[in-house]
Amino acid sequence: MPVLVMKFGGTSVADLGRIANAAEKVRREVERGYDVIVIVSAMAGKTNELVKWVSETSTFYDAREYDAVVASGENVTAGLMALRLQEMGIPARSWQGWQVPINTTRQHGAARFLSIPRDNIDHKFAEGMKVAVVAGFQGLSPEGRVTTLGRGGSDTTAVAFAAAFGAERCDIYTDVDGVYTTDPRIAKKARKLDKISYEEMLELASLGAKVLQTRSVELAMRYKVRLRVVSSFEDIDETSGTLVCDEDEIMESKAVAGIAYSREEAKVTLFTIEDRPGIAAAIFGPLADAGVNVDMIVQNISEKDYDEAHPGAVTDMTFSCPIDQVGRARKAMEDAKTRGLIKYDELIIDDDVAKVSVVGIGMRSHAGVAARMFEALSRENINIKVISTSEIKISVLIDRKYMELAVQALHDTFELERA
Amino acid sequence: MPVLVMKFGGTSVADLGRIANAAEKVRREVERGYDVIVIVSAMAGKTNELVKWVSETSTFYDAREYDAVVASGENVTAGLMALRLQEMGIPARSWQGWQVPINTTRQHGAARFLSIPRDNIDHKFAEGMKVAVVAGFQGLSPEGRVTTLGRGGSDTTAVAFAAAFGAERCDIYTDVDGVYTTDPRIAKKARKLDKISYEEMLELASLGAKVLQTRSVELAMRYKVRLRVVSSFEDIDETSGTLVCDEDEIMESKAVAGIAYSREEAKVTLFTIEDRPGIAAAIFGPLADAGVNVDMIVQNISEKDYDEAHPGAVTDMTFSCPIDQVGRARKAMEDAKTRGLIKYDELIIDDDVAKVSVVGIGMRSHAGVAARMFEALSRENINIKVISTSEIKISVLIDRKYMELAVQALHDTFELERA
Repeated sequence: MPVLVMKFGGTSVADLGRIANAAEKVRREVERGYDVIVIVSAMAGKTNELVKWVSETSTFYDAREYDAVVASGENVTAGLMALRLQEMGIPARSWQGWQVPINTTRQHGAARFLSIPRDNIDHKFAEGMKVAVVAGFQGLSPEGRVTTLGRGGSDTTAVAFAAAFGAERCDIYTDVDGVYTTDPRIAKKARKLDKISYEEMLELASLGAKVLQTRSVELAMRYKVRLRVVSSFEDIDETSGTLVCDEDEIMESKAVAGIAYSREEAKVTLFTIEDRPGIAAAIFGPLADAGVNVDMIVQNISEKDYDEAHPGAVTDMTFSCPIDQVGRARKAMEDAKTRGLIKYDELIIDDDVAKVSVVGIGMRSHAGVAARMFEALSRENINIKVISTSEIKISVLIDRKYMELAVQALHDTFELERA
Repeated sequence: MPVLVMKFGGTSVADLGRIANAAEKVRREVERGYDVIVIVSAMAGKTNELVKWVSETSTFYDAREYDAVVASGENVTAGLMALRLQEMGIPARSWQGWQVPINTTRQHGAARFLSIPRDNIDHKFAEGMKVAVVAGFQGLSPEGRVTTLGRGGSDTTAVAFAAAFGAERCDIYTDVDGVYTTDPRIAKKARKLDKISYEEMLELASLGAKVLQTRSVELAMRYKVRLRVVSSFEDIDETSGTLVCDEDEIMESKAVAGIAYSREEAKVTLFTIEDRPGIAAAIFGPLADAGVNVDMIVQNISEKDYDEAHPGAVTDMTFSCPIDQVGRARKAMEDAKTRGLIKYDELIIDDDVAKVSVVGIGMRSHAGVAARMFEALSRENINIKVISTSEIKISVLIDRKYMELAVQALHDTFELERA
């Protein structure tokens, strides 16, 4: 039998009615002839309740106990889903992480998969079980303790099972009906994509389109798992949602697949730093140690003239980071200066910026995407503060108040409303 | 190190504050030099919530899935308790049933212990762990599924661990401060017992003193586990609560240890049945099949004369059962009559009765307990409808309205207010 993996997130199993709704979607796939592996999250709100209890019990908690407590939410949903399926006449059973077993590393709270042996579940499929309902987000450490996988763990569990069982596809049921060319709340003309490549999805996800966790897309790309994002709350068929797949499956790539944005950005500039080998490491090492997620980095020739205070060559360094990490960034830089690791005249923070990115595999073969992007922004009189490029994306930092305008203008320029 | 088992029920761990309170009681025992095994129930209300979800999902549910869902409540408490103890500087960790492992039979929802290997927990004690917090009420089936133990499962888990680890004592923390000579709400003079024998406790428990589940007392008796009932909500010392122990530990037994009662009884009488071998089986077989818990049984010589309708010898049969099973009892009897299994002229139900029992190991050596009991009831003009006796208890059915009066009169007669 071909295997299909279906994953339902917290809002898709928030109560018994929604679990029943999800079970109907599973039934349809069973009737199509699949052996189905269902990965479930905890009912919406339950994990937060458990996390709150742990935090209130213990300030610096033992992550092993945190995991033992928090993983219980998924166990409840798995059992209820199995019961619901049985009630519908479908042979099903639940699997907790240790029962599969889902072998992971011992990094509690952020464990990584080691192996998912197929034997136990395959044995039950051979006996006539049609659906294995697996508690997502959890695993078993080499010491026999319960682990959890951290953010996006259930999506990642689904992809890992799809890889382990050679599934035909991994369907991620969520509260949106697919991946859009951009956020429909910002650009009314936003269009749902039928297909998108792993690489594009990675750029869109990490840039703020919060549909799939980056880690699950990375894993899907590595094992070539065909990943489909579909809505739990609509009738769907084979063509619903968005398929995240290898670029070979996408016949003709447009230059730009989508526009991503991130509102909560800050720009930090260090003026008049020494322009010498090792200066970047001296700056970004302390930032990494302080847990600052530096995103864009630009180094300019300093406009400052040579003077006695700066006998060597000098430059300026600008980087961006999430706005809520600005305090940490400033402290890390000031500490580094105090300790004599770096010198700078001034540290300026602009916490009133947003990032807008155009993403598309097609830009590898279509020239002039950057030029068209800059022209479009220029026509709207939007000043570009920082530019950063990669093979399949171009990002700019702009004043936050122009973010919506920029997204709309770029969506129009690249005609993303047309398939 | 000597081992102590401490068990906290649902109301004793109902919220984080109460978990902290329970943890303080654990700390005190650790400071006294014990290696402690703590057995926890789910936070009050949580198990009911889970059971409700299961029932609403599935009418005839798969007991294996029921167990997988319901057992999660204890896992949460175990983790939180371990975290709280760690926060207090006490080396502790949680254990779920499969981690110990608590090996049970495969009777899901009503599993029985097969074995509790000590190795894993002993190993951690040897490494310096002071407290093993074990999720109560659950175990692991031979097939590797999660089982639950049914009613009173957490008390029974505690006793089983005390037996397996040769614990010095098993302390059951609950919302009462011990076992009383009778219900203090009925007899103001009721006195807390310092000690009570297993046998007496069993009779008191099954007769309505709802402090300890019968099954846990039976297990304690079998393995000679010293069991102490103490309050979670009071400061306690070594002499607090009530010790349930072997009668050898009780120096001088009074004739009567306590008075039990059961308000919700019904009396069923079948008039003019055949007095022949096999008639009892013909009556009580169908009652058992219908799930009626028959308690007292009395067979009288019928007062009816021989007549043509009843050519053989005839008699009357009276039995008692919980009042909420009367409907089932009537239907079982009527069906049996329709099917020709039994004959009777009339079935009379008296659902206005209560049961009062005096219990005491001492009555084995003290003569005249029954006579004193009947005299006391006679003095109060209370009519006895049915009498039933065992080696250490005498029970009577009386009109329900006299129940309180009977309990008080008997408490006075046997001077239970005096130690």
